[in-house]
Amino acid sequence: MKDFIIIGHKAVTAPFSLNDLPGAAGRMDILCRCVNAALFLSHDLRRDVRVYLVLKGEPAPPKLISFNGAEVRYLSPDERSAASLIKKALEKNAQDFWTESMPGVSIRKGELGDLLAELGKKIIYLREDGKEVRGMRFDEPLFVLGDHMGLSDEEEKIIEGREHENVSVGPLSLHADHCIVILNNEMDRIEKHI
Amino acid sequence: MKDFIIIGHKAVTAPFSLNDLPGAAGRMDILCRCVNAALFLSHDLRRDVRVYLVLKGEPAPPKLISFNGAEVRYLSPDERSAASLIKKALEKNAQDFWTESMPGVSIRKGELGDLLAELGKKIIYLREDGKEVRGMRFDEPLFVLGDHMGLSDEEEKIIEGREHENVSVGPLSLHADHCIVILNNEMDRIEKHI
Repeated sequence: MKDFIIIGHKAVTAPFSLNDLPGAAGRMDILCRCVNAALFLSHDLRRDVRVYLVLKGEPAPPKLISFNGAEVRYLSPDERSAASLIKKALEKNAQDFWTESMPGVSIRKGELGDLLAELGKKIIYLREDGKEVRGMRFDEPLFVLGDHMGLSDEEEKIIEGREHENVSVGPLSLHADHCIVILNNEMDRIEKHI
Repeated sequence: MKDFIIIGHKAVTAPFSLNDLPGAAGRMDILCRCVNAALFLSHDLRRDVRVYLVLKGEPAPPKLISFNGAEVRYLSPDERSAASLIKKALEKNAQDFWTESMPGVSIRKGELGDLLAELGKKIIYLREDGKEVRGMRFDEPLFVLGDHMGLSDEEEKIIEGREHENVSVGPLSLHADHCIVILNNEMDRIEKHI
């Protein structure tokens, strides 16, 4: 299983309007594009991928939302579709354990540290000054990516406190969803020996 | 200059609601994501990229819309933002020549063949059975990509009638916007000698 964690520092933690994802929903558009980038193939889904969103915006942070590529349904590639499933999850009364809101989509209270402890994997942390991705091999990887604000010092400390490796996907600074596309492509090539 | 052409077979050719890009607007979401993938860096735009959309849906096809990375303004990464600029372009009375609707965004009547003739470049046609992209070199490339329907036989004939090369970005079939991300990354690496 390949896991992606994306941190949304302003992403709201209560139901929101689908008509203003960047503004009122706290750059929820970024997280929606990451869900797309992680899960979609042409006319298919990546069933070996899970996406975890860390929502840190008001009014009730932090919350975690997961998309499981093996189980998710009713997900289309457009931002609004992912946003609709996130909104439905936020309508649930989030607990300290996972609650499924729609097939393959679950929510719980919790922050980055909780999620990393639960998954218990080595972290591949996407950073511009990380090790070049080409030539690396990944075994059940767990990737962590920031949103437009990157990661906070506190979040970086949490990562540094666990087994991790810093990785870069190229010479320019890219959006998180673009990084995910490149990572998936790299793993596709490794798996198919290209 | 790097040019991307994406063909939207169902993309409507009159102003549309921003609240239903996949449905009523004829998979306009695909074209919006392609604009994002082609033009956005983190906190910057790719000023050496132009994106051309071929809109073939009702009621007044075909129309061409261009986004010029060096000139475009008022474009945010979310789908709705690109859609808003496309909609504004469709509000113009499209002629047989380019009309600018907003800074860096223009529209004209025309089809794929018109655009290829105007640009007058060798075509890099994205196909799953094309030549592996890694190791290739691109000089002022012109990439052509299909939407969820691929390219029609007629469109393929137009491409085959011009200088072209079929190229593949990996072992799996990907969405057009994901292909664009990978192509941009490949060109970034070539330019930075990584």
